[in-house]
Amino acid sequence: MQELLLEIAEAAAGSPDKGNVATYIPELAGVDPDQFGIAVALEDGRLLTAGDADVPFSIQSVSKVFALALALGRVGDQLWYRVGREPSGLSFDSILLLEREDGIPRNPFINAGALVTTDTYLAESNPREALGELLRFIRAAADDDSIHINERVAQSEIATGHRNFSLAHYLASHGNMRSAVDKVLGTYCHQCAIEMTCRQLALAGRFLIDADDMPPLVAVQRRRRINALMMTCGHYDGSGDFAFRVGLPGKSGVGGGILVISPGRASIAVWSPGLNRYGNSKLGTEAMETFAKRMGWSVFG
Amino acid sequence: MQELLLEIAEAAAGSPDKGNVATYIPELAGVDPDQFGIAVALEDGRLLTAGDADVPFSIQSVSKVFALALALGRVGDQLWYRVGREPSGLSFDSILLLEREDGIPRNPFINAGALVTTDTYLAESNPREALGELLRFIRAAADDDSIHINERVAQSEIATGHRNFSLAHYLASHGNMRSAVDKVLGTYCHQCAIEMTCRQLALAGRFLIDADDMPPLVAVQRRRRINALMMTCGHYDGSGDFAFRVGLPGKSGVGGGILVISPGRASIAVWSPGLNRYGNSKLGTEAMETFAKRMGWSVFG
Amino acid sequence: MQELLLEIAEAAAGSPDKGNVATYIPELAGVDPDQFGIAVALEDGRLLTAGDADVPFSIQSVSKVFALALALGRVGDQLWYRVGREPSGLSFDSILLLEREDGIPRNPFINAGALVTTDTYLAESNPREALGELLRFIRAAADDDSIHINERVAQSEIATGHRNFSLAHYLASHGNMRSAVDKVLGTYCHQCAIEMTCRQLALAGRFLIDADDMPPLVAVQRRRRINALMMTCGHYDGSGDFAFRVGLPGKSGVGGGILVISPGRASIAVWSPGLNRYGNSKLGTEAMETFAKRMGWSVFG
Amino acid sequence: MQELLLEIAEAAAGSPDKGNVATYIPELAGVDPDQFGIAVALEDGRLLTAGDADVPFSIQSVSKVFALALALGRVGDQLWYRVGREPSGLSFDSILLLEREDGIPRNPFINAGALVTTDTYLAESNPREALGELLRFIRAAADDDSIHINERVAQSEIATGHRNFSLAHYLASHGNMRSAVDKVLGTYCHQCAIEMTCRQLALAGRFLIDADDMPPLVAVQRRRRINALMMTCGHYDGSGDFAFRVGLPGKSGVGGGILVISPGRASIAVWSPGLNRYGNSKLGTEAMETFAKRMGWSVFG
Repeated sequence: MQELLLEIAEAAAGSPDKGNVATYIPELAGVDPDQFGIAVALEDGRLLTAGDADVPFSIQSVSKVFALALALGRVGDQLWYRVGREPSGLSFDSILLLEREDGIPRNPFINAGALVTTDTYLAESNPREALGELLRFIRAAADDDSIHINERVAQSEIATGHRNFSLAHYLASHGNMRSAVDKVLGTYCHQCAIEMTCRQLALAGRFLIDADDMPPLVAVQRRRRINALMMTCGHYDGSGDFAFRVGLPGKSGVGGGILVISPGRASIAVWSPGLNRYGNSKLGTEAMETFAKRMGWSVFG
Repeated sequence: MQELLLEIAEAAAGSPDKGNVATYIPELAGVDPDQFGIAVALEDGRLLTAGDADVPFSIQSVSKVFALALALGRVGDQLWYRVGREPSGLSFDSILLLEREDGIPRNPFINAGALVTTDTYLAESNPREALGELLRFIRAAADDDSIHINERVAQSEIATGHRNFSLAHYLASHGNMRSAVDKVLGTYCHQCAIEMTCRQLALAGRFLIDADDMPPLVAVQRRRRINALMMTCGHYDGSGDFAFRVGLPGKSGVGGGILVISPGRASIAVWSPGLNRYGNSKLGTEAMETFAKRMGWSVFG
Repeated sequence: MQELLLEIAEAAAGSPDKGNVATYIPELAGVDPDQFGIAVALEDGRLLTAGDADVPFSIQSVSKVFALALALGRVGDQLWYRVGREPSGLSFDSILLLEREDGIPRNPFINAGALVTTDTYLAESNPREALGELLRFIRAAADDDSIHINERVAQSEIATGHRNFSLAHYLASHGNMRSAVDKVLGTYCHQCAIEMTCRQLALAGRFLIDADDMPPLVAVQRRRRINALMMTCGHYDGSGDFAFRVGLPGKSGVGGGILVISPGRASIAVWSPGLNRYGNSKLGTEAMETFAKRMGWSVFG
Repeated sequence: MQELLLEIAEAAAGSPDKGNVATYIPELAGVDPDQFGIAVALEDGRLLTAGDADVPFSIQSVSKVFALALALGRVGDQLWYRVGREPSGLSFDSILLLEREDGIPRNPFINAGALVTTDTYLAESNPREALGELLRFIRAAADDDSIHINERVAQSEIATGHRNFSLAHYLASHGNMRSAVDKVLGTYCHQCAIEMTCRQLALAGRFLIDADDMPPLVAVQRRRRINALMMTCGHYDGSGDFAFRVGLPGKSGVGGGILVISPGRASIAVWSPGLNRYGNSKLGTEAMETFAKRMGWSVFG
């Protein structure tokens, strides 16, 4: 497997088309697109890496996985009164279905749904406490206390995030925001601005496989359900394509990171900043397609 | 497992809410809703059943799985130029996204996409030959030459299928129909009118697991991809819900049947005519949720 | 006014951009785009013309005005249970709103609504009788018995009109078609294939002004309402633009003709085959803008 | 005419169904629904009234007419690069078409478009100055310096206007907001909170007819165009219905007021707080239908 990872990293380095770095978050627009990292945290505790696996990046929407686990831990299945579990068929920041469905976002992995998730784990507490709890969850999962939030990125997103403000006010107009819009947005933007390396992210994702050496952070039923949501909704309107090509549940972020779970086997983090037309890492998706195929790791047989 | 199946059949028989039988196909409107059957065809060749597992029913959209396999066998990945691989987020007969996406249906499991699949395997041949080939495929997979088409149901669907005619003409207006609309519709309605029992359907589905005792009908890569499409798109706008609750790829039909695949383990057919609000078998979905949970059969860990 | 018409015809002849002739109806695709005609039938009976005002053209959707008058004459306000009176904001052949509004077309001037109108005046009679009645209405209005249907154009539209077949079957699936789809489509395509010259069309439109010399074909209240629908819905998703620029009610056809009404003053027909992006005659719209401005003929003061 | 107005006011008072007062703006929810006023300002300067024509009400979206005139006075036709001129076919606060059309609102009379209008007349100035200019325009048109803004209503709208905040941020995310969102919203909510009586509103609307006794506030071409927009877009998704039933351009507000223009003849203001399903005054619309029919005042002949 180590050789395969090196081979994949080399292929990525030589790829003529690395996609385009997202430009709508000014702090991220300047990231060097010629970076690629991959890390595989196995069920038995071993960790393999290749490429820029120790370079920190902005996990952005990958954070929605941890936020969902935290919100479910707080309110359980009551969350599903406020957000659905269906793929949206639309882009990550679409407001279309919100209007048709009376302010209930399609799933917790599009932006509108993630705002509801954030509002849920924020609850009565203040943003600092809520974000502290989220970081504790991630640090515990990764067994690494150095994971932190990049404040500059958070402020950049708050200053330019008109679309997210629009979604949040829309939810509020339908009574689907409990805390003040500004407070939820501030928390959400800080959550997205968490920085991790591939190594850290792969380790943090191990709570979604059935790993022997760690106490379970979530019950087996919940773990399966989070994986199911990652499979059907983890890549926006490219989710079907990812399931078709890779065959494993995953969650992407606009920073170029993807967390992929091979149930019972491994948690995999891949990162490359250039995006494809769905807003998912181009080289990251290609690398995962090769990796899953070569390893024979598909949940589909 | 046999005891579990009997227990599930008993629970189904006692369920106070069995959903509503589809009424838009007159021939199917008269089906007795108090029926429930389940059959499990294991990887090793054994078959377990409970309830009305030997009562034939109209497989309807479950046929789209076999039609897809046949069409892929004929043109391979070229199919994907004419139909997408993404969940639609809309009902089985929606025409909305067709307009936005210039006549390319979202996936082969909604009606519009299945019409393209039928048009693909129909190709140059005539409907009788094409349907003969489809039946041969299904009979070979199930090792049962008695599987047949219910002509009365087919005629009933042709006579009342305005929505499907509308979809087909819409595709034709975008140049995405090769054969004449009437010919494709006739073939499609006969395909949907195939009748099978749970026993037959479970056996026919074994080509989607990795069964030792039979020669593979499709290559491993294709098998995985069909399962992936069943997971993300197999239950229309209830696909995310099925993945969340059951955790296995499946394809439902408006006749009340569902084919579910547990990769490497079993092909499962469940049938009960009453439908939930997404148009999928209500008791069938509930039975599969119980079965998968009790067996611990989830692809998600 | 005669000088103004000649000036306008000359300007049209010299225009560098004449729009694009519609190509989706094969019989119409070959029409010479370098043609322009205009005719003004005044309230007092005088008729002024310029350019190719005696060249017959396919009136296409302009026929929807006469068909609406005929259908209202047959069923009166009951028509409004089956079709709305609101602009659609979408293109002439859109199927989008039909899905959202359960098979009730937005207005009688988009294709879906016009199919309901045709189905209404067709009623129990056969297409030949119904079309005969429509022609009698138009011939009486224009006082010209030579107006006829171009059978080749009608057949061309039937052979290639997949979008209209799609719309009609969609309406039928919602129970909003009384006669058989093929019969309605055949009638509709013949209705669209009526041929008229600008001179004939301007005269035929006089029933929508308050002309002294002719017996009223429709009551005053109905005349006003037809004009109102032409104002808000007569140019598809370019209706607002036409009202803004011209300020008079009008109905366009894809053959390049436009019938415009200046209430109490005149009925105007303009024709040039090249279309703008909304599918309305480009030079025809520009000519009407100039004519209305120079004459000071706006209903808006 | 005076008798007709009294008759109409009496009929309104006796109407069993007065519609429902809008509840989403708390300050307006408590308005007594049993009120009805009407005022007709004739071309020659006479003014006739009936009912509660001297009770002030919140003009709300009727303000969009004056705001449009002010914005056009400032930037002229450049406004049309930022907002369209087509009916939307959707409700007043819909965000659907904004997504499809890249942040260009359909017309200046739906909320999204009115936010662009406000942003346009706000320009570089501060809200106080801009609102001062708007008030000066209205006061000059009505020749009444007592017209003012209800600060409590404005604050109520700012505090609860999540949908408008959502629309404004959406526009900003597409680069179609020049000033800060909060500043535009504050100005917009104050604009909507202008209070007028029917008498004042009818007088203020006289700049849209061709009145002899006053210097024109807008040129004839602009006046016609504003009337055209009122005709096609003045009543949201009930615009076609109003044109069909009343036959005159009008603009409604959620406070229950409607300003109606009979070009060359009169400016009419009607008010009753109960709304129909489109969000337009129910009794106001009915009163205008009766009035226009009895007077024979239709622009359509």
